[in-house]
Amino acid sequence: MIFTKMHGLGNDYVCINCFRERVEDPPGFARALCDRHYGIGADGLILICPSKVSDFKMEIYNSDGSVAGMCGNGIRCLGKYVYDYRLTGKETLSIETKSGIRNMHLHIQDGKACGAMVDMGVPRLNAHSIPILSEKDLVINDPIEVQKKNYRMTGISMGNPHAVIFSEEINGISLEETGRELEFHPRFPERANIEFCHVTARDRMEIRVWERGVGETLACGTGACAAVVASVLNDLTDEEVIVKLLGGELSVRWDRKVNHVFLEGPAVKVFDGVL
Amino acid sequence: MIFTKMHGLGNDYVCINCFRERVEDPPGFARALCDRHYGIGADGLILICPSKVSDFKMEIYNSDGSVAGMCGNGIRCLGKYVYDYRLTGKETLSIETKSGIRNMHLHIQDGKACGAMVDMGVPRLNAHSIPILSEKDLVINDPIEVQKKNYRMTGISMGNPHAVIFSEEINGISLEETGRELEFHPRFPERANIEFCHVTARDRMEIRVWERGVGETLACGTGACAAVVASVLNDLTDEEVIVKLLGGELSVRWDRKVNHVFLEGPAVKVFDGVL
Repeated sequence: MIFTKMHGLGNDYVCINCFRERVEDPPGFARALCDRHYGIGADGLILICPSKVSDFKMEIYNSDGSVAGMCGNGIRCLGKYVYDYRLTGKETLSIETKSGIRNMHLHIQDGKACGAMVDMGVPRLNAHSIPILSEKDLVINDPIEVQKKNYRMTGISMGNPHAVIFSEEINGISLEETGRELEFHPRFPERANIEFCHVTARDRMEIRVWERGVGETLACGTGACAAVVASVLNDLTDEEVIVKLLGGELSVRWDRKVNHVFLEGPAVKVFDGVL
Repeated sequence: MIFTKMHGLGNDYVCINCFRERVEDPPGFARALCDRHYGIGADGLILICPSKVSDFKMEIYNSDGSVAGMCGNGIRCLGKYVYDYRLTGKETLSIETKSGIRNMHLHIQDGKACGAMVDMGVPRLNAHSIPILSEKDLVINDPIEVQKKNYRMTGISMGNPHAVIFSEEINGISLEETGRELEFHPRFPERANIEFCHVTARDRMEIRVWERGVGETLACGTGACAAVVASVLNDLTDEEVIVKLLGGELSVRWDRKVNHVFLEGPAVKVFDGVL
């Protein structure tokens, strides 16, 4: 079986062209191949499949075999794959995902895709749709206590629940403790992804992300989107922001007119392999 | 550049055939390709090179770019590579390593190598040659204190320094604390690899290994050898022992007549790749 290893800011995927290859048991296959010592090693498996409703269909499996809905870093890898391997000549693509259809515009350099801007859809702000338990409809700059410390969070769903916390000092925080306790806080009935953000200018911020069920990660696309929506809601930045994560930089724009969030970042091919 | 990913009990290597490929800066290349998110991902890089004094020469680089002397798991991968890719038809091979020439006998199944027995050489027992600071010449069942707890160690060099500790309970030990403190104990001038061993029969033991400069690992070939030499010296086992490590089982035999230790285990190819 032929595969390609790719990454978006270090968030790494094994991509398989299912126009040509056939994967029998994707969850079991994902678990085996994602193992970093006995397998290929990856954060997840991306199956590139035909779609009846858009240009391509993306199926993503996490390293534990569970199905992932949508991934801002993974979808850019898919975009680079289908363009570079000539499954399409289009630079603007619609991709069917488990979280709906996503549109994407590729950046081309020397005939190859080097990154993409992805329409990440509408941020949902209502407490019950995130979900966050709250007496108010919106959860903006709202107090939350964990480990006897008081934080203020802004809640957003980007298809998955996020709690964004602004702080002057994000590098000294032990996410292993604070992030985990916040993830399981009783106010989040479906748990939550936690972002600690330090705004450094009206168009720049640094963030660290604690991903629900995963832990701290190098780069979380929906986390970057949630952080920018939260910073606009708190009037800390403008609508277009460079977000610096551990794995590198993403560009996020919340277009208030259409109320969609656009995420822009690189996609890198590491190698082709044969299993 | 073409490479092959292989592992011995989960100790995984990127193997490159330097009869055909040319690696310009092995330490920098090892650092980049061993990265598990941005590169191929591996514990190390093995360059398979021509030798003037034996069948092949093995150059191993750790993931931090440093040169490794000899690796019991890595050399089996090299053996499988040169046989399966028809660089040789021989089943008994001599390999030049930084720690001297090692002889190896391949196990062949259906025309492919599935593992090997490697002559790991002479165990050195003299305290000054391990080195361990000691008033006695041999360090056998010798008291050592760490974290206000008393242990008894047996010291052996398999080209690298080992301190072997026998215990009824090895799974409850926090190697992260005890292993690290022992590694840096003042009695080990060049630090030490630490093995915690539970002997379950005259021919079986379970061990956990704390590798100097690395931490706990899935499988350490020299650690398994040191553990068996130590258990024979303490009359806890016979000379041939199945050693169960986190990553799987190795078979170790200390042949007292020739005073060499022989290590037997599997080698697995995961995939071929093109960078």
